[in-house]
Amino acid sequence: MKDHQRSPSGEDSLIARYFKPIATDPGSFGLDDDAAALMPSGDDIVVTTDAVVEGVHFLPDDPPETLARKALRVNLSDLAAKGATPAGFVLTLALRHSDEAWLKPFAQALGEDAAHFGCPLLGGDTVSTPGPLMISITAFGRVRPGKMVHRSGAKPGDCVVVTGTIGDAALGLDVLKGGAVAAALAHDAAASEALTARYRVPQPRNALAFAVRDHASAAMDVSDGLAGDLAKLCAASGASAAIDIPGIPLSSAAAGLLARGIVGIEQLIAGGDDYEILCTVPEDRREAFTEASRQAGVAVASIGTIIAGTAVPVFLDAQGRELVLKRLSYSHF
Amino acid sequence: MKDHQRSPSGEDSLIARYFKPIATDPGSFGLDDDAAALMPSGDDIVVTTDAVVEGVHFLPDDPPETLARKALRVNLSDLAAKGATPAGFVLTLALRHSDEAWLKPFAQALGEDAAHFGCPLLGGDTVSTPGPLMISITAFGRVRPGKMVHRSGAKPGDCVVVTGTIGDAALGLDVLKGGAVAAALAHDAAASEALTARYRVPQPRNALAFAVRDHASAAMDVSDGLAGDLAKLCAASGASAAIDIPGIPLSSAAAGLLARGIVGIEQLIAGGDDYEILCTVPEDRREAFTEASRQAGVAVASIGTIIAGTAVPVFLDAQGRELVLKRLSYSHF
Repeated sequence: MKDHQRSPSGEDSLIARYFKPIATDPGSFGLDDDAAALMPSGDDIVVTTDAVVEGVHFLPDDPPETLARKALRVNLSDLAAKGATPAGFVLTLALRHSDEAWLKPFAQALGEDAAHFGCPLLGGDTVSTPGPLMISITAFGRVRPGKMVHRSGAKPGDCVVVTGTIGDAALGLDVLKGGAVAAALAHDAAASEALTARYRVPQPRNALAFAVRDHASAAMDVSDGLAGDLAKLCAASGASAAIDIPGIPLSSAAAGLLARGIVGIEQLIAGGDDYEILCTVPEDRREAFTEASRQAGVAVASIGTIIAGTAVPVFLDAQGRELVLKRLSYSHF
Repeated sequence: MKDHQRSPSGEDSLIARYFKPIATDPGSFGLDDDAAALMPSGDDIVVTTDAVVEGVHFLPDDPPETLARKALRVNLSDLAAKGATPAGFVLTLALRHSDEAWLKPFAQALGEDAAHFGCPLLGGDTVSTPGPLMISITAFGRVRPGKMVHRSGAKPGDCVVVTGTIGDAALGLDVLKGGAVAAALAHDAAASEALTARYRVPQPRNALAFAVRDHASAAMDVSDGLAGDLAKLCAASGASAAIDIPGIPLSSAAAGLLARGIVGIEQLIAGGDDYEILCTVPEDRREAFTEASRQAGVAVASIGTIIAGTAVPVFLDAQGRELVLKRLSYSHF
């Protein structure tokens, strides 16, 4: 790991002090070298990159612990959606100053997640910036040769599936920003906390990676909103989709806010930061996929069907009426 | 490649327009997916990351073409020093706005270098920032299992070798900043241009990777100044070094400025951005290393010897007097 903030005298910097203890993989060479190494396994190495910028992708007062977990987990979510098993990551940190009170909890939480998800810190670079804090992670996964799951394999008739629940993170951001959701949940601390937790600390579905790899025809993670991401998957596959709105899985908090009219369904399906897996499963794989999901302990819901055509996916309510979406995706802040 | 600046309507963004044409490797999946794939070859995958920030690592008026080349080449230089062959890279770009006049030449120059060095663009992420432009590249190389060359293998008696010439980039930066070197070379446009070119567009020594892999006991690239980087190599190896100052290879421009007293040797050996390879070669490998370097067409110079001890390396002049260095390494700007 390079540390371009290291003092010329060569003494250990704060970076070394806090990141070395979490770099336990032999391929990291204790962060003492200019590069890391991934050992060959005969698998393809899947590579994904996600960067987050203070004031753009996260709030300036987000705690360092949750930032660390989110920065890693959004990449883990990509690996899961591609059917890959985590193998490690490198970190680029652009910091205004080396602040021990920030770095210590950041590194500790990062190390805990790295261990929990089996995705060790291999190296990286730390640089000074006069601008906003930025965290960029490039993560690596392994998948059998040629078996990475693409956005582009969906076929008419395939079932559209999502994991977990949709829209909670967008509601959590509204809570943090003191919006309508915050007001509506002013006396329900448990619901507020559950929603903000979904925004700050995603739950990547890595346990589902094998089921996706073995049974999905196309997959991606939902990061910019279900409607927009499904549109991208359909566009890449040269297909469209019909989605059954009542089938979209919602948390009890989200369902309650929807029933009370505090939020509309658009806010949930065009909100971002879900980090659930969206995938399509051919009819003859549905049973096996459902069984594999059950064994993985990940809740999955069928929300519609891939259809022929190149139109933007349609979302249909319980009466079969088409929802007109003003926007498909999420704009941060 | 993710584009978090993509418009919600899904139309191709500037990012897609300029980066797709240079993503020619099959493992990039045309930048249309959430991840890239590196095929297995039985080799270790060497991973290195270098980030540069506007106003910290480069000047705000540096041309996009040279920025692109430098951002990639500093990573290629790391791969070369580790004995690895380039395999590809991912790019994180943090931009204030999608500026066609900047992105087009940036992507074109990046594509030319990627093709020239056999290091294809595999993917990445583009994000908005209200702060300075930042370019972070994570590059991948291949090396036979366990054969990555470390900083830590130097042994007393090994010969200390550098490629190319030392100090030119630091002089080039002085020219760009209008310092003493700029004044001294006011009537020598050719020398000024040669030095600024060394600063803006490093020449990574990837042709030497096999020679380093097969014969060097330790290696790293010189990015923060020869004196400081040699100190790091020695510290990692638990050794010291005695360097013969007259043996340090200088360009004619640097030698002229030194002879005229415009700069001191300290400025050359504690200057940064050389992106030459610094390595140590055991006595019984010297002949083979020299021959391999000759075949690779890379100039190498022996500048001293690894010695026992843990002292900071000593630099000795033609009379054998020790140079006292006020600083070992480079601080940008």
